[in-house]
Amino acid sequence: MRLTQFTDYGLRVLMHLALVEGDRVTIAEIAHRYDISRAHLMKVVPELVRQGWVTSERGRSGGLALAQPPTDIAVGAVVRSLEGEPELVACQQPGGHCVISPACGLPGILADAVTAFYEVLDGHTLADIVGARVPLRQLLRIQAL
Amino acid sequence: MRLTQFTDYGLRVLMHLALVEGDRVTIAEIAHRYDISRAHLMKVVPELVRQGWVTSERGRSGGLALAQPPTDIAVGAVVRSLEGEPELVACQQPGGHCVISPACGLPGILADAVTAFYEVLDGHTLADIVGARVPLRQLLRIQAL
Repeated sequence: MRLTQFTDYGLRVLMHLALVEGDRVTIAEIAHRYDISRAHLMKVVPELVRQGWVTSERGRSGGLALAQPPTDIAVGAVVRSLEGEPELVACQQPGGHCVISPACGLPGILADAVTAFYEVLDGHTLADIVGARVPLRQLLRIQAL
Repeated sequence: MRLTQFTDYGLRVLMHLALVEGDRVTIAEIAHRYDISRAHLMKVVPELVRQGWVTSERGRSGGLALAQPPTDIAVGAVVRSLEGEPELVACQQPGGHCVISPACGLPGILADAVTAFYEVLDGHTLADIVGARVPLRQLLRIQAL
């Protein structure tokens, strides 16, 4: 069981923006801090903007910033949105097929398990994840405001 | 979020063996019924044997059979075993790294969510999944015993 890299990177962007508390940060800077691919980050940012969690400004003083306080961004909503449909097994994927699908009891049980998974994440916000702000700031070498 | 093909195929083998209720079935037959790769099935069966859920006999009347009643095989135990370590994000994988890992609050929250996921599966057995036995048998065209 694994989240996609898309979700992983989306969470890192949101966490980074929560840590800088309103300062605008470029994608290049986030990619550099985490030592990850700028091209991959550029794919996930539009989704974060589309969902209303991030604003993006062009220009010399531009960059990304959170569009909402970290206390208002639920981890469950973020992961659910970035992961897309919770199709845990191949038979549920588009193009997937399994001869016993019409009578198989597995998808219903897996759906209940996924619901329980997201219910836990729904109980936490972005603010909870970056709660230990000082050490996180030190790790990312972000200047204190 | 998706289970591996390894888990998917492991569950199909167990379900098939539950449906034939003690008859020995070959890997080739299971591969044929589900129209899936025999080579991939051959990878998962040893793990099912190792876990004590399946017995494998060689020879003309050989094949696979369940080693325990379907009511004794918990779906949670099967998925947990076949999925391996529940490392949901890349930073938790071997070789994965993230600069903020030492202070990041995400892995703890994800671990709680994974626990909730498996708790739901722990509440169901193989017998529950193949509960609708007659239509499943028809779909697989398994002779009634």
